[in-house]
Amino acid sequence: MKIRHNVKRGNYGFLDSKDISFFESVIGKRNLLQEDLDGYNVDFLRSVCGNSQLVLKPGSVKEVSAILKYCNERKLAVCPQGGNTGLVGGSVPICDEIILSLQRINRIISIDQITGITVCESGCILENLDNKTREVGLVVPVDLGAKSSCYIGGNVSTNAGGLRVLRYGNLHGSVLGVEAVLASGQIIDLMSDFKKDNTGYHLKHLFIGSEGTLGVITKISLLCPPKSDAVHLAFLGLSSFDHVLRTFINAKRYLGEILSSCEMIDAGSLEASVSHFKLNAPIQGYPFYMLIESSGSNASHDLEKFNEFLENGMKNGEILDGTVTAELSKIQDIWKLRELVPVALVNNGYCFKYDISLPLREFYNIVNVMQDRVGDLAKCVCGYGHLGDSNLHLNISCEKFTEELYNRIEPFVFEYTCKVKGSISAEHGIGFLKRNYLKYSKSPESIKMMRSLKKFLDPNGILNPYKVLN
Amino acid sequence: MKIRHNVKRGNYGFLDSKDISFFESVIGKRNLLQEDLDGYNVDFLRSVCGNSQLVLKPGSVKEVSAILKYCNERKLAVCPQGGNTGLVGGSVPICDEIILSLQRINRIISIDQITGITVCESGCILENLDNKTREVGLVVPVDLGAKSSCYIGGNVSTNAGGLRVLRYGNLHGSVLGVEAVLASGQIIDLMSDFKKDNTGYHLKHLFIGSEGTLGVITKISLLCPPKSDAVHLAFLGLSSFDHVLRTFINAKRYLGEILSSCEMIDAGSLEASVSHFKLNAPIQGYPFYMLIESSGSNASHDLEKFNEFLENGMKNGEILDGTVTAELSKIQDIWKLRELVPVALVNNGYCFKYDISLPLREFYNIVNVMQDRVGDLAKCVCGYGHLGDSNLHLNISCEKFTEELYNRIEPFVFEYTCKVKGSISAEHGIGFLKRNYLKYSKSPESIKMMRSLKKFLDPNGILNPYKVLN
Repeated sequence: MKIRHNVKRGNYGFLDSKDISFFESVIGKRNLLQEDLDGYNVDFLRSVCGNSQLVLKPGSVKEVSAILKYCNERKLAVCPQGGNTGLVGGSVPICDEIILSLQRINRIISIDQITGITVCESGCILENLDNKTREVGLVVPVDLGAKSSCYIGGNVSTNAGGLRVLRYGNLHGSVLGVEAVLASGQIIDLMSDFKKDNTGYHLKHLFIGSEGTLGVITKISLLCPPKSDAVHLAFLGLSSFDHVLRTFINAKRYLGEILSSCEMIDAGSLEASVSHFKLNAPIQGYPFYMLIESSGSNASHDLEKFNEFLENGMKNGEILDGTVTAELSKIQDIWKLRELVPVALVNNGYCFKYDISLPLREFYNIVNVMQDRVGDLAKCVCGYGHLGDSNLHLNISCEKFTEELYNRIEPFVFEYTCKVKGSISAEHGIGFLKRNYLKYSKSPESIKMMRSLKKFLDPNGILNPYKVLN
Repeated sequence: MKIRHNVKRGNYGFLDSKDISFFESVIGKRNLLQEDLDGYNVDFLRSVCGNSQLVLKPGSVKEVSAILKYCNERKLAVCPQGGNTGLVGGSVPICDEIILSLQRINRIISIDQITGITVCESGCILENLDNKTREVGLVVPVDLGAKSSCYIGGNVSTNAGGLRVLRYGNLHGSVLGVEAVLASGQIIDLMSDFKKDNTGYHLKHLFIGSEGTLGVITKISLLCPPKSDAVHLAFLGLSSFDHVLRTFINAKRYLGEILSSCEMIDAGSLEASVSHFKLNAPIQGYPFYMLIESSGSNASHDLEKFNEFLENGMKNGEILDGTVTAELSKIQDIWKLRELVPVALVNNGYCFKYDISLPLREFYNIVNVMQDRVGDLAKCVCGYGHLGDSNLHLNISCEKFTEELYNRIEPFVFEYTCKVKGSISAEHGIGFLKRNYLKYSKSPESIKMMRSLKKFLDPNGILNPYKVLN
């Protein structure tokens, strides 16, 4: 494990026994942890480790409010934490911030079957919420590999993307309202039960994607689309990235409104998940693979569209081999190949992970460029991701972190992304690990505006310090 | 015409000849109007009339910047104006604000056929932009009755809704980036060419739906979905609102992912457009009508779905009569019946217009309640709108504005909406006409936060004063 930081502690207060007594009086002794905090201090990638001595688990928005009001007055730094599945070190403390866990604020409040409007608290685990909405014929519009442990509040706070942005858009579109607590302890009710509500400034967006630095989200109103009756998934083998791109264009053309996912995996990525987890891929031996999913309301219509798409692709020589299935267990097996890629790469030593948006014509070049650049220092340089959203996950795995490899990669990878007019963070956010690279994607005046907004909403800087802005 | 306001002029500077000289030096004499300003001073509904003596038509973002910087220093109030089609008095001056027209900043910069990403300036007329995107197989995700004169910049500034929110969601989801000019003259580049860009705070949302009070949008990056090859439109007659609601639920079930619009018109609304514009409705004599549109990629699949939906509705006695067509000219004729309702109601004297979101079970009650309340004072109390988005347009037309009728309607209509937990503005915004009623939809602390945000971004309050906040 490499703890990649050497950050000077900010000018915050230090915890004392009176603080502990206060917190105990608010949330009760058993909802306050002072020992065995590794799981809270270390992030999923094991690249950032904080030194927090205190985890607080409030059970209501009022308790969150009381905690933040107190911390703000005492200038105690706070790290809000959901499922701690973030990949940019945004969900763990950097120094000794108090960890504010949302795990007990986790009720599902209502699900409206007709309008799809779902109201829940931020500590709901994404998969649990999705299961509940599916019971009444709806789905949560965000889906990602970490679904069994990430919280919906964390998803919203980070504007998480995932596998179905192509179909359902991002959370700024799907989140109808939030309740949030400001650094001052002020509870702001920005909930809405409507798809359309143009009454004044749309303040909720300040909290979507600001990674807990402007407020702590405690409740969410979410527009959930209807569950599709028919799902088909194809796993395809292709010989070049050019064919991958053409296949994506054809998928849009032939599948139209039923296209729900368009993912690319290169050979190195597939090899990682297959070998690490001893999985069977339906086909192997190609440089590129695609997962193309349709979700629709009529299985025979959808299959007809799918077959036409596949026949065309095979006839043109773009798709070399593949399989398509509507069987749930097979669909799940194929998705596993994709979803376990990042897990396999992390478990095999150390992995440098980059989550970038790129113009489609540039999409895969960066993998080759990085391969040339790092040479034998890496075990594997590979790329996979949400081609349909122009979002590549570039991964560089190695036995263990070395400064030499690190310096070969950064800041070059960000400079390159900037040069081809990409975005240095498509969906993972900025967190701690990318805060020094924000300038590659944001203009100086917008960074300045971010800083003054942070100062405006959190004058003492207690909320998730050391993150997003440096 | 009733000019419904008696507002005390704010503490702003007064225009003098030096100001005129400065503006002439920035934009040239011919882009500055000082006469015949009625078309700029009076809103579409003819309910608000300003007394501006000056219209400026900058040709670039730099000119907008220079104008605002100067106005901010001189404390001259500014009313940004797009196509002036707003329905809440947000786009006209209230006192003598300088009108900043975006009409010359109207280039379409790029349209990416593959990703759908379209970049344009804010003065583009919505219909022109839509026509251009259609040439390469895309559509603009916002569509509304005023499309031939409204500007995309105004649509984004007001988070305009319209006919296809049901399918494509709202503009917070579709707008990928904006360029805006702050009150200080500072140009903020928040453009993005990507669907996914999680680099820092999502500041663009501050300008989407804040009605020109926080900044002036000059450029937009918009995600345009593919144009549908097959469009079907049904015009249905129904006997009760209960049947309307059940038909909506069935449309979602049978049409699934191809459902692109679900509108309701009551008898009074249809009668208004039919009689005023001498139109032919395919069917008449029912208390309720629905327009249900599908947009898909396969005409025969779509028609099969549509027929199944209609057969089921007729068998159950929910749909009494109707017609369905895929012919473009017939589709346009049917849409006219709907789109001309508001125009007909306005042209027939005076019309009180309310644009509200309501829980579906409460959706139509308010029309009956208002009918009882206003009695003979009104010519017509009717309701139509975007049922699929829970958005009702309640209209009360009369020969001419009277205080008596006004007092019967307001604030009752807002109190009622608040009581049933609706929103007092679904898509039209707050503008000038609803600023005193904001409290019915927003909590005191969120209004307070709005005020401090306004102060933060526009300390002299020069941008679109008297709007949104009172």
